[in-house]
Amino acid sequence: VTDVWIAGAGMTRFGRRDENLPDLMAEAALAALTDAGIERPDALVVAAMNPEEFTGEGNYGSLIATRLGLSLVPALRVETATSSGVAAVYAAFASVAAGLHRSVLVVGGEKMTHLPTPRVSEIIGRSIDPHERTYGTTMPALAGLIARAAMHSRGLTLREMSQVSVKNHDNAARNPFAHFRERVTLEAVMESRLVADPLRLYHCCPISDGGAALVVTAERRSVRIAGIGQGGDSIAVRYRTDLTTFRATQTAAQAAYRMAGFGAERVEVAEIHDAFTPFELISLEDTGLVPPGKAGRATLDGETAMGGRLPINPSGGLKARGHPLAATGISQLVELCWQLRGTATGRQVPARVGLAQSIGGLATNNWVTLLEVRR
Amino acid sequence: VTDVWIAGAGMTRFGRRDENLPDLMAEAALAALTDAGIERPDALVVAAMNPEEFTGEGNYGSLIATRLGLSLVPALRVETATSSGVAAVYAAFASVAAGLHRSVLVVGGEKMTHLPTPRVSEIIGRSIDPHERTYGTTMPALAGLIARAAMHSRGLTLREMSQVSVKNHDNAARNPFAHFRERVTLEAVMESRLVADPLRLYHCCPISDGGAALVVTAERRSVRIAGIGQGGDSIAVRYRTDLTTFRATQTAAQAAYRMAGFGAERVEVAEIHDAFTPFELISLEDTGLVPPGKAGRATLDGETAMGGRLPINPSGGLKARGHPLAATGISQLVELCWQLRGTATGRQVPARVGLAQSIGGLATNNWVTLLEVRR
Repeated sequence: VTDVWIAGAGMTRFGRRDENLPDLMAEAALAALTDAGIERPDALVVAAMNPEEFTGEGNYGSLIATRLGLSLVPALRVETATSSGVAAVYAAFASVAAGLHRSVLVVGGEKMTHLPTPRVSEIIGRSIDPHERTYGTTMPALAGLIARAAMHSRGLTLREMSQVSVKNHDNAARNPFAHFRERVTLEAVMESRLVADPLRLYHCCPISDGGAALVVTAERRSVRIAGIGQGGDSIAVRYRTDLTTFRATQTAAQAAYRMAGFGAERVEVAEIHDAFTPFELISLEDTGLVPPGKAGRATLDGETAMGGRLPINPSGGLKARGHPLAATGISQLVELCWQLRGTATGRQVPARVGLAQSIGGLATNNWVTLLEVRR
Repeated sequence: VTDVWIAGAGMTRFGRRDENLPDLMAEAALAALTDAGIERPDALVVAAMNPEEFTGEGNYGSLIATRLGLSLVPALRVETATSSGVAAVYAAFASVAAGLHRSVLVVGGEKMTHLPTPRVSEIIGRSIDPHERTYGTTMPALAGLIARAAMHSRGLTLREMSQVSVKNHDNAARNPFAHFRERVTLEAVMESRLVADPLRLYHCCPISDGGAALVVTAERRSVRIAGIGQGGDSIAVRYRTDLTTFRATQTAAQAAYRMAGFGAERVEVAEIHDAFTPFELISLEDTGLVPPGKAGRATLDGETAMGGRLPINPSGGLKARGHPLAATGISQLVELCWQLRGTATGRQVPARVGLAQSIGGLATNNWVTLLEVRR
């Protein structure tokens, strides 16, 4: 198998954006192509979770290829709910690893803030098991259920979940691409409006617009995709044996470490899918970055803060950088790429190996990716 | 690059079906897995063009994996409008060729007949350029434009386009999986209701439900994917230099022949994307199977009929086997697989090499695949 490298990385500022989705994707794609020094990639992979319902347009592979002036370049769209961005990176990785293409542009994005929140919630909710949805289940409701179960069986505390939010807002304050740049206090988080018991507003990521892009290549560059792994789990949450760990993340992490030939011990920075802040704590343990039962304590002790033993979500995470669905998984890798190259101005972490973890649906389709710098 | 083989093939009967989309996909997938003698593939790739709007459900990778009892198996969804099925085969091909997986189940399908036709047309129409859609453009309208242009500049006749329909209905009459089993006369085609001048009802494929599946593998089997190629073109039809050939097919065919190491001269049977019957004639020339300007004559002369020099669409094609969007590209390969293995009972063609051609959108994202039997 050919080694696969990241030649270019780019993203838009996340947040409320007036541009349409093709324009957001184009902004990110052109930034990545410019960074790569490549004008015309051999192929294009587009990630969008549900552009038809969010934007009224479809055929996004061809739409974005045309928007980029690359209409003759073969283009695929890949989707795995909220982890679609990484799934697209995987498709590009496989094409390059198989020798089918030399360079592939991956671009993902979502545009949602122009719609009323209940409509956004309905569209995102299509990734929940149909039977469970007949009871009015939403993503925050399921996340609340999981948080409550973790409080009960694993001793997770509200203070720990809240500290994740404080930390990630702190980080985002230093990231010009972040949706939120304001710091928040522990008290503000714990006193924010209840969304789905025990989760409050500041435990939940916002609805964001944005795009992110990578160029992957068979040519040697500084940052290598050392491992990429995917894991699945039942779309029906009620069929799971344990609500408080995500088997899909554990499987994905094992696959990524196996491909990379190293384990969690070499990871020095990570981007974790904190769509709801308890998910950061669960995911730190599922990926083996923190021993079982220790993620809450590690967070309160500042181990996962900037300057700590293992900085988590230097970008601000989904919580504060924002979560434009299919852009998110790619934006995690953009951040890691910048961190590993030493160009994450204002929020630089010393690291040679970074890990990104992305959750699709309610942890039905998760990914772990390992990037490594070779100097 | 590892050779990639087809281990199993299966499909549902196409037509008006009462089952929901997951059940149709499961029927096809289980047929393919049984044919392959594989219970648990390493990965799953799902193709559906727009299941969110057609069926109200999303997260189809995880949904179908769970439906199949394969919820722990990594699952992707791939989409390229109406060619999504082949795009999913390509994603599986790349994974196997790269050595990332040994066996991958590909399943595609669509469920549309439960919706009113104008709603189906609206959903399919999202694959048309947004600007062109503001003028009320639909797929049949664009196909009519192209047919008229071909009549004007290439001498294509209504009789030729109509004979494609007669031939494909003849073939479907022998295919138990086909939507339509009735033969039609040339007169009936030419006198059928006008849809989009010059196209009449019997020049257009129906709205069909159905599923189709393949298992691809790195293990040697009888049928090999010898080549697979993709081509793109502007989503905006107004930007094309020529309306009467599809550059995306030409590019895809060149890529597929290059990968296979042989050309059109070795192809003995083909499945062609005849969503509108003039597209069969255009595509025969774009793939090099018939010399430029000769496809109409060849059709009238019976060269492309069963027993002719080069049987085209022994399955009945999109016109008569039916066109459940993301199932279609896979079903073409299922048919070719059966033909090459010699198990296409009642409609068997003698062939060692087959070609499938699939059109995404209004020829914005096309594919050509070559299968070869190795005895």
